[in-house]
Amino acid sequence: MSVYEEFIGYVKELYDLRKASDLLEWDQETYMPPKSVEGRGYALATLSGVYHEKLTSKKMGEYLKKLEIEKDLTEEQKANVREIKRIYEKKTKVPLKLVKEITKTSSLGTEAWARARKKSDFKIFQPYLEKMVSLKKDFAEAIGYEDKAYDVLIDDFEPYTTVKDIDPVFSGLRKNLVPIVKKITESETKIKDILNQSFDVDKQKNFGIQIIKDMGFDLEQGRLDSSAHPFTSGSCDDVRLTTFKEGRGFHLFAMMHEAGHGLYEQGYKKEHYRTPMAEAISLGYHESQSRMWENLIGRSRFFWKYYYPKLQKDFPEQLKKYSLEDFYRAINIVKPSFIRVDADETTYNLHILLRYDMEKNLFDDKIDAKEAPETWNQKMEEYLGIIPENDAAGVLQDIHWSQGLFGYFPTYTLGNLYSVQLFNQIKKDVLGFEEKISKGNLSDLKKWLNKNVHEHGKLYSAKELTKKLTGEALNPEHFIKYLKEKFESIYNIRF
Amino acid sequence: MSVYEEFIGYVKELYDLRKASDLLEWDQETYMPPKSVEGRGYALATLSGVYHEKLTSKKMGEYLKKLEIEKDLTEEQKANVREIKRIYEKKTKVPLKLVKEITKTSSLGTEAWARARKKSDFKIFQPYLEKMVSLKKDFAEAIGYEDKAYDVLIDDFEPYTTVKDIDPVFSGLRKNLVPIVKKITESETKIKDILNQSFDVDKQKNFGIQIIKDMGFDLEQGRLDSSAHPFTSGSCDDVRLTTFKEGRGFHLFAMMHEAGHGLYEQGYKKEHYRTPMAEAISLGYHESQSRMWENLIGRSRFFWKYYYPKLQKDFPEQLKKYSLEDFYRAINIVKPSFIRVDADETTYNLHILLRYDMEKNLFDDKIDAKEAPETWNQKMEEYLGIIPENDAAGVLQDIHWSQGLFGYFPTYTLGNLYSVQLFNQIKKDVLGFEEKISKGNLSDLKKWLNKNVHEHGKLYSAKELTKKLTGEALNPEHFIKYLKEKFESIYNIRF
Repeated sequence: MSVYEEFIGYVKELYDLRKASDLLEWDQETYMPPKSVEGRGYALATLSGVYHEKLTSKKMGEYLKKLEIEKDLTEEQKANVREIKRIYEKKTKVPLKLVKEITKTSSLGTEAWARARKKSDFKIFQPYLEKMVSLKKDFAEAIGYEDKAYDVLIDDFEPYTTVKDIDPVFSGLRKNLVPIVKKITESETKIKDILNQSFDVDKQKNFGIQIIKDMGFDLEQGRLDSSAHPFTSGSCDDVRLTTFKEGRGFHLFAMMHEAGHGLYEQGYKKEHYRTPMAEAISLGYHESQSRMWENLIGRSRFFWKYYYPKLQKDFPEQLKKYSLEDFYRAINIVKPSFIRVDADETTYNLHILLRYDMEKNLFDDKIDAKEAPETWNQKMEEYLGIIPENDAAGVLQDIHWSQGLFGYFPTYTLGNLYSVQLFNQIKKDVLGFEEKISKGNLSDLKKWLNKNVHEHGKLYSAKELTKKLTGEALNPEHFIKYLKEKFESIYNIRF
Repeated sequence: MSVYEEFIGYVKELYDLRKASDLLEWDQETYMPPKSVEGRGYALATLSGVYHEKLTSKKMGEYLKKLEIEKDLTEEQKANVREIKRIYEKKTKVPLKLVKEITKTSSLGTEAWARARKKSDFKIFQPYLEKMVSLKKDFAEAIGYEDKAYDVLIDDFEPYTTVKDIDPVFSGLRKNLVPIVKKITESETKIKDILNQSFDVDKQKNFGIQIIKDMGFDLEQGRLDSSAHPFTSGSCDDVRLTTFKEGRGFHLFAMMHEAGHGLYEQGYKKEHYRTPMAEAISLGYHESQSRMWENLIGRSRFFWKYYYPKLQKDFPEQLKKYSLEDFYRAINIVKPSFIRVDADETTYNLHILLRYDMEKNLFDDKIDAKEAPETWNQKMEEYLGIIPENDAAGVLQDIHWSQGLFGYFPTYTLGNLYSVQLFNQIKKDVLGFEEKISKGNLSDLKKWLNKNVHEHGKLYSAKELTKKLTGEALNPEHFIKYLKEKFESIYNIRF
């Protein structure tokens, strides 16, 4: 057996361990009995410990050393070695003491955050935020960086992408987005919020299953279950989506969103299963897939041209009296709001830009944890023209920071931008694209994404693949143009 | 930290790994998408490899060596050390090459067995049976034994129990059982098989849930799902039962059976979770719990006195016109049949005695694998007075031997015998026992089993606990007497 073969056999066992953890986590959100929380926690901790031990073992170090001088590797094999080396080096550079300190602070901090949010009192959370920022700075120092500590944190979620890449893109976006939102908000067109009705959860799920099947999601190598919040779990031959267990909202978009993630995970080549070549490029690219299906397809006129009559049939009481155009407008209402997860396609990114600015400033020592609420509120006014009444609806709304997930937020907006830039390319590549979608034929889109994105796994970086597929670097103009065209027609305005 | 504390922390991680495997296996039978079989196989193999590595590690060897001279241990701690040492020694004694050979032969043999059964052609399976018996003999040699190679195999399922213990018990049973079955079969009483009707699966499940709740099974630390064949999985804070997914049969007894297993697994003390002290004594003892609830409670007059009116209410079409006595007789029909899993309370043990005899003779070199079908048919005639028409309904009916599970079968009958012996004690200990059951109060039985069996985990061996609880060794007379009394009344006969 060659060194590479031995190495990749060992790597596959790492993926098996992650697969086991994935299932335990999925089960925890779907079927696990309530009293099993503690035991499940132990099991997950043990699995994670075994994974860490195996990843950072002497054996792995030796494989990687030997493979450094191995010349006879294919591009795919090189990518596998490169990506494992990447995480091996990260994991071995950070002292165990610091890892444990972060885990502990995350656990205490999450608990404090929940309390703080409940009481809407930032002060309760402040010391934990301070501590976490400080620990994450140590973390960045341990790993090392060229330019900014924050780059190290971004790299965990959006590999090979730095502040230098993001800053110009986000500032181009910000410049355009703020006036767009303002103009829409000031328009005189008032849209009736016809989705603000009760839609039976099970009937929605059945409708959703039909749509995700049409999207090409394979229910023989995946499932759709229910949980408190929708998520996607697993990969390759076992990809599981969830939709809302309850609640009066309209859940179709969440299902399409998760199925977009799910198609990525089902889209790797079988020969690459259990290796980095069967893993997504980045969280941003992952989000580009979910947002494409959710927004560019799911909130489009041409998609609903086919599906709206079916939806009306399933929900006559709620929808019979409304036209396709009423519905299309209702699913695209723009309304600045305090809560990120409730935000629409235009304002969503302003919520992210705010968080990105703050994270960058925290790690550049330009602001202090204690200034977070004030900075938050200032930015909210600047970007969205509204100021939250209290911290619960402001700086305390997201769990991420309590868990040390700095660098995660920007991937949401990167995903939105990638999605439109790729989508424009798809519309060029696929003849009669919108016509096909409007007849319920979604298979060409899935095929394009399989062939051009999913099947490459981690072969390319997000930057490389974007250039390769669209001929240019990530460019916010695509997104801006898309928004302008879409909302001019919905709100009867001219940008 | 003391050596024992370090040791037990390490042991708990072993239990975590098993817990993860348990969930993966449960999921495979309940919710896993069909195309995930291969990947699930890899994940389970990796988990099992990690478990084996950890169990047989140098570290574990050192802990056990240090603990040998540790005097300051409680009885519970000693039991934990003893039980881990037991499996450590077994695992380290068997050469890896042999383990792999057994695994491979099991995989090929199971496939061959399925083919053989389908074609009802023992010849297809014969070479694999020969090979497996030979490998299992090597296995027994590697581990070592005082008396018989077969003892080693029994010990995997019924620890500290040997042929010398079982032989006198089983021969006492055989002597009585054959004439009992003969007499019942020859009786002129004909019982109407009113359960041979269609009962809606979901309605049965709902009824079953009420019963297992009444039994004291905690659905907040367990579940009831559906699968092709019922089973119980998990332990402690997460115990999962299944019932039949489909089929026209009456599934209540299967549910009570699994809940009996489930109560054992939920019955350990919390302080012992993730150690041998939170594990069952033996498969025989486990089966004594399931069979007690299934047969001694579930097929009793006094139980149905309370539940039959409710059952009639749920299934009026099927049961309204039949009395409690009709029902009681129907659930206790005795009929010699070829297939073990379909057998009734009396004939079941003859199926097991046959298999026990054959296994013993195979490992004593008294018969050869190729003689298996002939021996089988002779024994069937001798014990049950019937001869299967073909090998599919005879020697090929069970999967066990193809997987090398010799020594497993006797635990079924041991379970039946333990169940009655314990039950007689319970009836002495609990005042007005049958009266309570006949009013739907099942909690005293559960409490007795918790306190006297479950909470002890692996503190005692089956032999020790039986002596401690009932004042005597396992004695088949209890079971014989129980059968005679029960079936005299049902079949209007006198033994």
